[in-house]
Amino acid sequence: MTQSHMAREVAEIPEAAARFLDRSRDALARAGAALNDRDPRVAATVARGSSDHAATYLKYAIELQAGIPVASVGPSVASIYRRPLRLDGAVCIGISQSGRSPDIVDMMRTAGEGGALPIAITNHADSPMAAASAHCLALHAGEEKSVAATKTFVNSVLAGLALLAEWQRDDELRAAVADLPEALARAVALDWSPLSARLARAGSAFVLGRGPGYAIACESALKMKETSGIHAESYSAAEVLHGPAAIVQAHFPVLALAVEDAALPHVVATAERLAAQGADVFLTGAEASGATRLPSVPGLHPMVAPLVVAASFYACVEGLARRRGFDPDTPPHLRKVTETV
Amino acid sequence: MTQSHMAREVAEIPEAAARFLDRSRDALARAGAALNDRDPRVAATVARGSSDHAATYLKYAIELQAGIPVASVGPSVASIYRRPLRLDGAVCIGISQSGRSPDIVDMMRTAGEGGALPIAITNHADSPMAAASAHCLALHAGEEKSVAATKTFVNSVLAGLALLAEWQRDDELRAAVADLPEALARAVALDWSPLSARLARAGSAFVLGRGPGYAIACESALKMKETSGIHAESYSAAEVLHGPAAIVQAHFPVLALAVEDAALPHVVATAERLAAQGADVFLTGAEASGATRLPSVPGLHPMVAPLVVAASFYACVEGLARRRGFDPDTPPHLRKVTETV
Repeated sequence: MTQSHMAREVAEIPEAAARFLDRSRDALARAGAALNDRDPRVAATVARGSSDHAATYLKYAIELQAGIPVASVGPSVASIYRRPLRLDGAVCIGISQSGRSPDIVDMMRTAGEGGALPIAITNHADSPMAAASAHCLALHAGEEKSVAATKTFVNSVLAGLALLAEWQRDDELRAAVADLPEALARAVALDWSPLSARLARAGSAFVLGRGPGYAIACESALKMKETSGIHAESYSAAEVLHGPAAIVQAHFPVLALAVEDAALPHVVATAERLAAQGADVFLTGAEASGATRLPSVPGLHPMVAPLVVAASFYACVEGLARRRGFDPDTPPHLRKVTETV
Repeated sequence: MTQSHMAREVAEIPEAAARFLDRSRDALARAGAALNDRDPRVAATVARGSSDHAATYLKYAIELQAGIPVASVGPSVASIYRRPLRLDGAVCIGISQSGRSPDIVDMMRTAGEGGALPIAITNHADSPMAAASAHCLALHAGEEKSVAATKTFVNSVLAGLALLAEWQRDDELRAAVADLPEALARAVALDWSPLSARLARAGSAFVLGRGPGYAIACESALKMKETSGIHAESYSAAEVLHGPAAIVQAHFPVLALAVEDAALPHVVATAERLAAQGADVFLTGAEASGATRLPSVPGLHPMVAPLVVAASFYACVEGLARRRGFDPDTPPHLRKVTETV
């Protein structure tokens, strides 16, 4: 059987991450110094789709490590409503694999003109988004043929975390980032077959996380939809108890993505509560009563650990897609570049 | 048959809105003057559940009318990760029906200590959240017995919009807010039975909106889960084309909430595209090829129009819940006050 593009691209995640770190050292140092110098009091992110999940990850990372609020700005504020935001003194981080979405390019240009520091994270350093920005972190992920983003998502988050480490001159985070290629290599080899066995016949599912792990829950739920036709929805492990838990009946599948951080006991508590409702709960990072534990790479810095979990999930969902009779490379109704206006 | 609490509370929406406007005039004037005086460069919101959807509405309203970025701050940043955010000079708006969620109270207190202007929007003016804030906008919605929030949601958004009108000294928005009770009275009487007929047998659904209408999509999807056991998920009418559209097959139900604003043609375009994929599309605010139009109140200010749509939806979903055999007042597995930590 021919391997799918997605399977190859998931396997390439560790080397793509290593390539980014190798080739982007200077760009990271320059952008990090600019941020350290400017000391922004607020950050804005602009992105869509999987890239917006990378932005959500960076929102938590920046709030928790740099201590400033991060606003996710809808590109439509500039492109449709034509309302310029006051972003002087802010850093504005745009994330787009192609760098070509017109509304995102528009927002980055407007932000720069308004006095923000626009930083582009893109796989295409020659893209309009890069041209509209003061700094560009090129992903160096190589071509991604599958419609479902995998290695570009990992490198987008990696770029943001590496930037944050330089900005904050945070040696612990720098070391954790440098070790990521090795951790990712261990992650893509983990066996999550109990999850794919359960999801092989699922119609709906919830994916839960908290903090940066919530961003990985968002990304995982989207991938289940795109590649496997499952109506998976992401929630913060706190929010899910405010209403959504009403639809969790016997054998409803729940994937709870916990890592070794301050939120761990809270994610475990939610997992146990949903298991007690009868849900089929799968959990990373810890044991929970009534839940099936999935393996993960232990001992990681809490800011990088959820990204490593994403790599294990990607390896799992590619096989799941084929098992459910889908071609993981070409989801129904989708194209690789969606030019939203 | 006895009327449900939810039905009574939906019917009370217009008078609860009028009561808020009548009794909160002074509090609105004081908080609005404080904001106008301080001229914040960034806003933060803190909320969970339905109240967080009210916060999402206000995010778009503030970004579009006041032109400053709005960050949705997860209460867990303070309560679990123990990381104080730099919010000096910001306005921090907390929304909680009960005003008792410990993590939200914590975040409001921390924000105030850090130099932000904390403003509480709550149905309980004697709550800990009100005590932790510089200003309190009491909802005056009266007791809400149904677990599913309706009139408190409407008054939360109304409070934010009325505050924004005072802050910006925006006479058009002031007039639109003053007219809301009448528009809401028309909205709760509208007939959305084609939608409830279709959803009577639905397992999954998408609810779409854009700008402030996206917040109403979030709220509507949550209510479908809570009261009617439907796995409904909300998307921005732009985002849904970046992946989620993959699960939209023949007769997949889609509710698209458009209003007469700059995004209208874009929501219509998405509705038509999903209808062409075979979805059963229901649309407010406009005609679209292949979609069923639902009635709405015409001629409203674009900042208040989506809130008026919410009232029509609430009236519809209460009947839908009973039709599907649920008690709309007591969803499975939920309590009225969820004290997240």
